[in-house]
Amino acid sequence: MRQVIVAHAHCDLYCGVYDPAQAKIEAMSVLKSAQKYQDSNDEVFRDRALLIKEERAELVKHHLSVLWTDFFTADHRKEFEDLDDLFWRAIHQAGEAKKSADPAEGQKLVDLIDEIADIFWQTEKAKDMGVYPPS
Amino acid sequence: MRQVIVAHAHCDLYCGVYDPAQAKIEAMSVLKSAQKYQDSNDEVFRDRALLIKEERAELVKHHLSVLWTDFFTADHRKEFEDLDDLFWRAIHQAGEAKKSADPAEGQKLVDLIDEIADIFWQTEKAKDMGVYPPS
Amino acid sequence: MRQVIVAHAHCDLYCGVYDPAQAKIEAMSVLKSAQKYQDSNDEVFRDRALLIKEERAELVKHHLSVLWTDFFTADHRKEFEDLDDLFWRAIHQAGEAKKSADPAEGQKLVDLIDEIADIFWQTEKAKDMGVYPPS
Amino acid sequence: MRQVIVAHAHCDLYCGVYDPAQAKIEAMSVLKSAQKYQDSNDEVFRDRALLIKEERAELVKHHLSVLWTDFFTADHRKEFEDLDDLFWRAIHQAGEAKKSADPAEGQKLVDLIDEIADIFWQTEKAKDMGVYPPS
Amino acid sequence: MRQVIVAHAHCDLYCGVYDPAQAKIEAMSVLKSAQKYQDSNDEVFRDRALLIKEERAELVKHHLSVLWTDFFTADHRKEFEDLDDLFWRAIHQAGEAKKSADPAEGQKLVDLIDEIADIFWQTEKAKDMGVYPPS
Amino acid sequence: MRQVIVAHAHCDLYCGVYDPAQAKIEAMSVLKSAQKYQDSNDEVFRDRALLIKEERAELVKHHLSVLWTDFFTADHRKEFEDLDDLFWRAIHQAGEAKKSADPAEGQKLVDLIDEIADIFWQTEKAKDMGVYPPS
Repeated sequence: MRQVIVAHAHCDLYCGVYDPAQAKIEAMSVLKSAQKYQDSNDEVFRDRALLIKEERAELVKHHLSVLWTDFFTADHRKEFEDLDDLFWRAIHQAGEAKKSADPAEGQKLVDLIDEIADIFWQTEKAKDMGVYPPS
Repeated sequence: MRQVIVAHAHCDLYCGVYDPAQAKIEAMSVLKSAQKYQDSNDEVFRDRALLIKEERAELVKHHLSVLWTDFFTADHRKEFEDLDDLFWRAIHQAGEAKKSADPAEGQKLVDLIDEIADIFWQTEKAKDMGVYPPS
Repeated sequence: MRQVIVAHAHCDLYCGVYDPAQAKIEAMSVLKSAQKYQDSNDEVFRDRALLIKEERAELVKHHLSVLWTDFFTADHRKEFEDLDDLFWRAIHQAGEAKKSADPAEGQKLVDLIDEIADIFWQTEKAKDMGVYPPS
Repeated sequence: MRQVIVAHAHCDLYCGVYDPAQAKIEAMSVLKSAQKYQDSNDEVFRDRALLIKEERAELVKHHLSVLWTDFFTADHRKEFEDLDDLFWRAIHQAGEAKKSADPAEGQKLVDLIDEIADIFWQTEKAKDMGVYPPS
Repeated sequence: MRQVIVAHAHCDLYCGVYDPAQAKIEAMSVLKSAQKYQDSNDEVFRDRALLIKEERAELVKHHLSVLWTDFFTADHRKEFEDLDDLFWRAIHQAGEAKKSADPAEGQKLVDLIDEIADIFWQTEKAKDMGVYPPS
Repeated sequence: MRQVIVAHAHCDLYCGVYDPAQAKIEAMSVLKSAQKYQDSNDEVFRDRALLIKEERAELVKHHLSVLWTDFFTADHRKEFEDLDDLFWRAIHQAGEAKKSADPAEGQKLVDLIDEIADIFWQTEKAKDMGVYPPS
């Protein structure tokens, strides 16, 4: 009996607060770090730009994984047929942007997160749990 | 000479992307975790709600500290005279919300972050570096 | 030109070492922590069991996400048609096992990871990069 | 009623153990990492020196933030009028030392932490909670 | 009385799941990262190889420390007389592999972990708690 | 040739700054968290006390492991014959203190760290690298 309560209660807890803004902000950092890396000739600065890009890209992966399996439900995945593929490409792209110092890889990542955000804000669930709806 | 370049370049890197949205989203989780804790009688669920609240409140502290010393400059602190006090109260409140299971403590935290966001969006710097401006 | 080299080189780096053993070992900890929670009446022990289960389940999510987007390629996803669905269910189940103190949820997680391991070891890539092939 | 107990009890918990030694030790690592970076011509070594400096500077920021909002009270901030400014400069300087490979930036950080330690040990609270009082 | 229960219960919890596979997999990454570093001329790639090697070596240290003090008992240390020395050399070697870009240092680390695994699988305790016994 | 430079240089880097104060301060937190747990009847507070104790004990393990394999050399281990045993007992005791809510377990941990500190300050190496020598 407790497990039933738990399952229900935890679904609630899980679904507390979600927003693609978290992934978007980190992805913007990935993009800008790559741009700054390319614009600089300073060894220390370039080193740090790669370091920060690495961390930010890892955070993007984390935030996207949470959206995919905690926010989006089995029903959402039926409704939005290419959702799994979109998430695979976005999380994979976070890896590409991590590996590369080419700002174009960061831009692709930002664009994929924008696609995810479009779907996110089409759901009813997002109306309760999102924080920064598109104006 | 290199140090000069570094200093300048790093200031740029530092100022890559900032947004109070990061602190706000985590603070919303703190608030909702406390509400869910109060609404539940399930031991496992209540335990996890406190655990999640703890982590989220710690992230709020981190995001606020970054805004205070990395985004806001010495000039901003002159322009907005109570900025230091506002940040002390907000980061301190994140600690209060961490300690307490009273949703009112989480709400106070959210309100203080909103005050910080108001100031953030009054700066020129935010126009370049912010991601989710108020609509 | 450099980017081309980078892209190739980094693919190599990415593909260094992978093994579902990492996710499996953490999932076994999730399962055993739930069992020990149920078998104990000690408040401190039960608290720690939930805490450890939480951390281990989080690590399972991370290891699975790495396998899905770093190890498995677009071609693998065509070859093994339900790979995306299997990963969604496994990572989602890690969340269920995190939320619940029911060992059955941990067992379901372990079983899903075994399904993933079966596919992993069918790939050519695994022969170079896996460490603990099935005996 | 419980909240009252909580608030009080948590204040106690919060105030368990504090010592500027934690920030000082990490700041010494920041300083020495910059010195060693400057003294070396080895690519691998220099890379690691920057990496370690980055981590240590981040830990300094964390330890200082804890002192500012968890140890020091509103009353302390009235008694020591430039406390907020001192903390802003110290945490900001940790960022400068992170960005730069110039040991002088690390030395400035150490000096600011020494100023904080002087104030820390003037408080009554430190007598109960500090671990390494000045001899 | 409770403490007795706790102590016993926690020993059980502690001894949930252990396997030298965790240290071995990370050590293989350390070795391969050093090899890839040596094989590449790309600045970004080499930088990332060192970064990943650093993290992986740190994880090896963690996994080895857990085996030494959580899995192996005082009795094991009497039975296997050079166990402490073997662990000191292995954890120290993880530091050497972290510091160096020479794959030979990574290979030494892998070899020492294999020695530990040989002893691990000689214990009765491993039969219950190990996951990947030698085939 | 480079490896030789690296090895030497890295030894220097490694040996930058060490002090048993780091382990001691965290161990004091472990002890005080257990005391506060025992003194409180508040569910939320007791939960947090265990959580904080868990984290602090983990940090103690980390700091002790660093001292054992990074600071202390093979020669030190010959000079101080029971050094390995002392470290095993101290790191193992950090696990005991983690598992238990009995302040006596935390006190044992603090005492073992004091024994380590006594040896630490007997070394020449500590004179250069220690920060808080006994007054």
